[in-house]
Amino acid sequence: MHIDLSRNSSVKLYLQITKTLADRIQSGLLPQGTKLPSIRHLSSLLAVSPVTVSKAYAELESMNLVTCTQGKGCYVAEASVPIYHEGTQDLSWQMSLIDYLPRAQLWRNFNHSRKATYSFHIAAIQPELLPTREIIADTHRLSSENSDVMAAYGTFEGDLELREVFADHLSERGIPIVAEQLLVTSGAQQGIDLVARTFVGPGDVVYMEAPTYTGAIDVFTSRGAKVIMIPMDEEGMRIDILTRLCDTHPPKLIYTIPTFHNPTGVTLTMARRTQLLDLAQSYHCLIVEDDPFSDLYYKTKPPLSIKAHDQSGYVVYIKSFSKTVAPGCRIACVAATGSVMDRLVAAKSTTDLGSPLLTQKTLLPFLRNRLDQHLVSLREQIRDRLTVALNTLQRYAPPEVTWYAPEGGLNVWIKLPSMVDIPELERVADREGISFLPGAVCYAGGMDSNHIRISFSYTDKETLKSGLRKLCNLLGDILDHSVIVERKPIL
Amino acid sequence: MHIDLSRNSSVKLYLQITKTLADRIQSGLLPQGTKLPSIRHLSSLLAVSPVTVSKAYAELESMNLVTCTQGKGCYVAEASVPIYHEGTQDLSWQMSLIDYLPRAQLWRNFNHSRKATYSFHIAAIQPELLPTREIIADTHRLSSENSDVMAAYGTFEGDLELREVFADHLSERGIPIVAEQLLVTSGAQQGIDLVARTFVGPGDVVYMEAPTYTGAIDVFTSRGAKVIMIPMDEEGMRIDILTRLCDTHPPKLIYTIPTFHNPTGVTLTMARRTQLLDLAQSYHCLIVEDDPFSDLYYKTKPPLSIKAHDQSGYVVYIKSFSKTVAPGCRIACVAATGSVMDRLVAAKSTTDLGSPLLTQKTLLPFLRNRLDQHLVSLREQIRDRLTVALNTLQRYAPPEVTWYAPEGGLNVWIKLPSMVDIPELERVADREGISFLPGAVCYAGGMDSNHIRISFSYTDKETLKSGLRKLCNLLGDILDHSVIVERKPIL
Repeated sequence: MHIDLSRNSSVKLYLQITKTLADRIQSGLLPQGTKLPSIRHLSSLLAVSPVTVSKAYAELESMNLVTCTQGKGCYVAEASVPIYHEGTQDLSWQMSLIDYLPRAQLWRNFNHSRKATYSFHIAAIQPELLPTREIIADTHRLSSENSDVMAAYGTFEGDLELREVFADHLSERGIPIVAEQLLVTSGAQQGIDLVARTFVGPGDVVYMEAPTYTGAIDVFTSRGAKVIMIPMDEEGMRIDILTRLCDTHPPKLIYTIPTFHNPTGVTLTMARRTQLLDLAQSYHCLIVEDDPFSDLYYKTKPPLSIKAHDQSGYVVYIKSFSKTVAPGCRIACVAATGSVMDRLVAAKSTTDLGSPLLTQKTLLPFLRNRLDQHLVSLREQIRDRLTVALNTLQRYAPPEVTWYAPEGGLNVWIKLPSMVDIPELERVADREGISFLPGAVCYAGGMDSNHIRISFSYTDKETLKSGLRKLCNLLGDILDHSVIVERKPIL
Repeated sequence: MHIDLSRNSSVKLYLQITKTLADRIQSGLLPQGTKLPSIRHLSSLLAVSPVTVSKAYAELESMNLVTCTQGKGCYVAEASVPIYHEGTQDLSWQMSLIDYLPRAQLWRNFNHSRKATYSFHIAAIQPELLPTREIIADTHRLSSENSDVMAAYGTFEGDLELREVFADHLSERGIPIVAEQLLVTSGAQQGIDLVARTFVGPGDVVYMEAPTYTGAIDVFTSRGAKVIMIPMDEEGMRIDILTRLCDTHPPKLIYTIPTFHNPTGVTLTMARRTQLLDLAQSYHCLIVEDDPFSDLYYKTKPPLSIKAHDQSGYVVYIKSFSKTVAPGCRIACVAATGSVMDRLVAAKSTTDLGSPLLTQKTLLPFLRNRLDQHLVSLREQIRDRLTVALNTLQRYAPPEVTWYAPEGGLNVWIKLPSMVDIPELERVADREGISFLPGAVCYAGGMDSNHIRISFSYTDKETLKSGLRKLCNLLGDILDHSVIVERKPIL
């Protein structure tokens, strides 16, 4: 693998090496049993002293990620996930092939191999609540005119009719925008990735909320960014802390999920939205506003998006239309202006020559005519599930367990007492068919976290209830001998 | 923009600066009228002497890319393409936002805005020859079972049934492979991009044919690779030259289009395929075998792919199923083994969480049952067009104009006498509604080229004939006063 060392950083070199290797081991990119390079070899490769490498290896050993034996060297420990498949060919040379994938937590946590009866790890909506049959019926109306269109390459920006529908949708939500300022992407993930590959390079400072969406961390670290995570409170990202840090570490980009934040569920207040925009203006940096959830509010409408107040093209706004309609269609849009937009379109062309027209034309009639009505009933259905989730937690969770009750989105962020070993809980839960997202993957650098994220919208209510109860019981077993503390909501 | 200077390079610093700026200006990323940074400012930014920057600016001026005026500074010249749109907002700060897009020739040359009556610039197939109506009819058979599948996220690797169809298709073509060694991508472009983002970083040496596919140059330069282009002859890439260069510049990756190469049409001989694979094995580097055209042969079947002989996972093979079936569906596959495959899948997850299931499920029945039969008739149709193209050139091209007669693919690579100013020809042709691809964009670093690429499959035979005749006449006008030379095929 490629290890980027920053010699001017306040982070010690041995910790930088530790972090890089830990990220790769925890992502499964360095499989169990892999021999790490010898201390002598790695120190000469990185031009650091052997003591530095030796300290990094000791650190990894203390994290139980590697096992070192005198005279034999260090090996990735058994606890990590074995990923590489065996073949009959001799592929051993491949292990020396350097790559630029520092982290791959999406791959590690979300691939199809993960089938759970009580599927709480994925922030998606139960297929039965989605209008997929309707959308498939819409494909029957694809006319011969469409057929000719589809035989040609689409435009890099995406289908103009669809972008017009998106423009109307966003305008109704306070974002005054025209189709020309919109780019169709293959899901919000691609939107984040396009911004990163266009504007973020090695050493650029990217601020994110702590915690945040794990897929965004994957993206920005893959660009070699210096990711700095900003603590949150009940009003969202701590802009005061961000402001202070910007003094010494000027931002290239600030990534935020201001509305029903993933994973915490917290919404950034209007006042802080304004402060954030002011900050971007004074530093001439980009804000990436990722907005998967603003239409999924269960009490009152959330505040207007940051993009709605953006007069000078500082905000790149990313809106998924996959999650609430048809995840399998991978449709999202990115709103940006001026040369920022032009450069994103240029990057899109290099990436994949534009998103498929078939999915765009298929979703068009639904998004144009029936989305709003669908969202009304979807909100109702998911609010019911949220109620079930919160009630079940209230009733069965051990008293030491606390959570934040969200007013929108698909997740509950649960804080466990520090004596709970989350990887161990994961294994026990897995045996019962329960999956959840360990909070640690929502931090850059594998920070310790006592949290887990439960997504409550992918299973039906009965399954949700019984699965959550089982999980609470497992937690109860673990905590059986611990002291009872007072319960309060917490981030 | 971000300028990467390599101080150990044999290329002089002022030429590195020239190349970076020229690439951006020629891509339209620095629009007409943009003021370049002052010599003092850029020299301090890059930590080079003012003389170096001043030489770079003089070089750009001699290329007619910028205009410098004493006391006023240097501006991007009018001849370059104006791209950035105007708005009512003040977006001027955006011009100082550094990006990592060194080049964007795909964006510059292939976006929809380019509508020509005689469309010869795009290597695509006339929509009427594609089975799009059939494929749309297939969407009507998408069952409710499929509908449930589509409401969920797909897998990162792509639909298993589709990968099984791809595996059969490739096995029939001598590539013994199973579905697990295949990754579905959004077009071949994304396949190239995934390999680059996973395995290529700043300074890594990437070898390519000279000339090559412009979209691949965009991708590898965007990763900061040191791109080295290897001359070709009638047997394809000059492996002898490549071998010598590898001594001093060991390869990280070799990108090749061995069969009916784009843009030249030349096919790499079997002997050289073996040499290339041997070379990769001795340097432990990857070969990226891009294969858009092997099914489009018009005389005899081409030699087996390099991948067919790959025993140890050195070759990443990329096969588009968009071009010959449904470009609007953006479906291709990447074949790789071992940890190379695992890492590509991890990169795919970060990029877009997997390609849309709708397009995969829609194309499945056609690709499974009717592709081979479709290819038979497609070959016949396109062979007819090739004949028309070659006959028209033979009859009407001025005698100083030469070309290589391809035995497959969609392009004719035409060499013009050096006195033809190709940008000027482009403007004149554009007025007549004729588009072609200027050869210069098929070289890294904007190398001078006397070639143009004509794609003969996107228009019907009559349009092809009359457009090519017009183009020949334009060339005749230009060459009216030049000496007549003997005609022979040439690369």
